[in-house]
Amino acid sequence: MSSVENEGSPVYLGIDVGGTNIKIGIVDDAGHPLAHGKIATDHQRGAEDGVSRILAFAKSLLPQAGVTWEQIRAIGLGTPGTMNVKEGRTLHMPNMSGWDFFPIRSHLEAESGKPVMFLNDGNAAAFGEYWVGRGREYDSLIMITLGTGVGGGIIIQDEPVHGDHSHGSECGHIVIDTSPDARVCPCGQAGHLEAYVSATSVVLRVTERLEAGDSSSLKMKLDEAGEFSAVDIATHAEQGDALAREMIIETGEILGRGIVSMMHMIDPGIVVLGGGMNFGGMNSAIGRIFLETIRYMVRELTFPVLAEDTIIDFATLGSSCGFIGAAGAARKQFGKTS
Amino acid sequence: MSSVENEGSPVYLGIDVGGTNIKIGIVDDAGHPLAHGKIATDHQRGAEDGVSRILAFAKSLLPQAGVTWEQIRAIGLGTPGTMNVKEGRTLHMPNMSGWDFFPIRSHLEAESGKPVMFLNDGNAAAFGEYWVGRGREYDSLIMITLGTGVGGGIIIQDEPVHGDHSHGSECGHIVIDTSPDARVCPCGQAGHLEAYVSATSVVLRVTERLEAGDSSSLKMKLDEAGEFSAVDIATHAEQGDALAREMIIETGEILGRGIVSMMHMIDPGIVVLGGGMNFGGMNSAIGRIFLETIRYMVRELTFPVLAEDTIIDFATLGSSCGFIGAAGAARKQFGKTS
Repeated sequence: MSSVENEGSPVYLGIDVGGTNIKIGIVDDAGHPLAHGKIATDHQRGAEDGVSRILAFAKSLLPQAGVTWEQIRAIGLGTPGTMNVKEGRTLHMPNMSGWDFFPIRSHLEAESGKPVMFLNDGNAAAFGEYWVGRGREYDSLIMITLGTGVGGGIIIQDEPVHGDHSHGSECGHIVIDTSPDARVCPCGQAGHLEAYVSATSVVLRVTERLEAGDSSSLKMKLDEAGEFSAVDIATHAEQGDALAREMIIETGEILGRGIVSMMHMIDPGIVVLGGGMNFGGMNSAIGRIFLETIRYMVRELTFPVLAEDTIIDFATLGSSCGFIGAAGAARKQFGKTS
Repeated sequence: MSSVENEGSPVYLGIDVGGTNIKIGIVDDAGHPLAHGKIATDHQRGAEDGVSRILAFAKSLLPQAGVTWEQIRAIGLGTPGTMNVKEGRTLHMPNMSGWDFFPIRSHLEAESGKPVMFLNDGNAAAFGEYWVGRGREYDSLIMITLGTGVGGGIIIQDEPVHGDHSHGSECGHIVIDTSPDARVCPCGQAGHLEAYVSATSVVLRVTERLEAGDSSSLKMKLDEAGEFSAVDIATHAEQGDALAREMIIETGEILGRGIVSMMHMIDPGIVVLGGGMNFGGMNSAIGRIFLETIRYMVRELTFPVLAEDTIIDFATLGSSCGFIGAAGAARKQFGKTS
C-alpha cells in the first residue's frame, strides 16, 4: 500500500507483549497490518525502558506503513499475566517480573500522547480473530490458545469479556476433571483444562504412558534426545506411531468436552483454536484429525441447535493476531467509524 | 404509591412465563413493582389465547398500579424452553407444548401496541437481581437458579448473554464430571451440573444412599410417604440427621466447583443463587451451612483475587425476580433514561 492511499486516514498501533518478544504493528482501519515487527522484551530492563523502546520501534515503522505519527488515533496494548484492566496496571507478570505492578496505561499514554486501550493478551488475540480473522463473520467468539499453557479470549458483540477483576476469559482454567486423581494445573489447582491440553501437559501425558511401558517410536526420541515436544508427537503420529495418534485424539476429546462447557455459558457463533500447539493444523492429516475429533466430541455433547450451527475451526491470523487484535480493540474504543 | 406520584412517568410491563403460572407485574422506572399477580398458564389453550389473557390481566392491574396503559413504555417477556431470541420465536417448550414454535414477540407487539423485549427466563431472573436485587451494586452477575432443574442467567455490563443461538447462560449444563460413571442430566448428556445439584438430583442422590443401606431419618419418611423432597432433606438435616447434612454439604461442594468454572470464564462481580432449592436459605442454619460450603469451595479453587473479592450470596427478589427482570430488560432496551 502506498503512502498516498493511507494519507489522512486513521490507523492504530497494536502492541502484543510476551515474555520473550513484544510484537508491534501499525494497523489500518480495515484491520490490515501496514508494517510490523518485534523487539526483545528484556523485561529486566523494566517497563519504562520497554515503553521507550516500543515507541521508538513503532516510529521506525512509520515510513514503511506510509503514515504519519499524527495518523495514529489510538494504541492497543495486550499483556500476559495478572492485571487490573480498569486501573490500567499490571500486577504479577510471570516470566517478566521487571514489568510487575506498573501503571502501564497511564505511562504509555503520557509517553505517546495517544489514548491507550489496555487488555489481556488472550482477549487481544481473540479480538484479532473476531475483527478480521476466522471469526470476522460472527457476533461472538471464544478463542482458545494452545501453547506452553492454555490461554483464551471471549468476545461478545464487540466487547472482550475482561471480567470484573480482570480475570475473565481464563478458558484454560475451567474445571474439566473433578476426580480425586485429576491432574494439577501450573496455577496450582486440580482438574483445569490447561493441565490436560497444553503442549506441556500433552508431552507429560505421553511421557507417563512411555514410562508405563507403552511402545512408541517416541521412546527412542526420548532416550536419544532426553526430551520430545508436541511437534515431535505430531511428527511421529504422521509417521504412523499408534501411541502418538491415540494421545492426539484423546487430547481432542478432552478439549471438546471443555469447549462444550464454554459453549453452554457463552453460546458463541464460533470457537477458534489458536496458538502453536495444533499438531500441524490444517496442513497436516493429524492436525485435521485433531480438529475433527474436537468437532465430533462437541457435536456429541451439546444441544442439537449448537451441534448443527456452532463453528469450530483453527485461527487464521497466526502470531499476528495479538497486535492486530490490540489495535482493533483500540479502534473499537477510541476510533471506530463504522 | 399513589397514582399522582406515578402520573406521566414511564413504567414497564414484565411477564415471566412458566409451565404452571405466568407472573405479570407493572414495574416503575426504579424497579419497584407497582402491582403484580399471576394467571394460570393453561398452555393447551395456545399462545394466542395466553397473550390475550396476559394483556387482560395486565390492564386489570392498572388501577392498583396508579398508571395508565399509555404510560407503559415497553414490555419484557421471559419464557422457558428453547427459543430464537433474534427472531422472537419460541421453539420447543417443555411442559407447555401449546406454546411451541410461536412468533411470540411480534404477536405480543401487535396485540399490545408496545415494543417487546424477549429473552430467556433465566436471563430475565438474572436481570432482575442485577437491576434491583442482590446484584444491584455490581457490573456483572451470574445467577444460578436451583429448582426442579438448574437454570441460569449471565449479565455483563447491562447485557444478558443471550448467545448466538439463544443458548447462552445455560449454567445447568456445564460439564462438572467427565468420569465414565458421571450422572446423566435430564437433557440427555452426562456430567452436567444439573444432574448433581437440582432438587430432583439431590433427592435421587440421597435415595441412592438410602438404598445402599445408609441410615437416616429420611428412610422412615420414604417408607411412610413413598417419597421425600429437597425441603424434607433440609428439615431432617436441621433435626440432626447425619446423612441429610452430609448430602447438603456435598451438594454445596459440587456447586462450588461448578461456580469456579463459570467464574473463570466470566469473572462476575457477584454470583447469586436463586430458586426454591436453597435448604432454607439465610433463614435456616443448614441453608447458611450450604452457602458457606459453596463459598469455602470457591475460595479454595479459584485465583487469589477472585477468592478475595467475588461475592457469592442468595438472591433477594424471590419469585418476583423474573417479571421484574423482564421489565428491566425492556427498560434497558427501549426506555432507559439514566
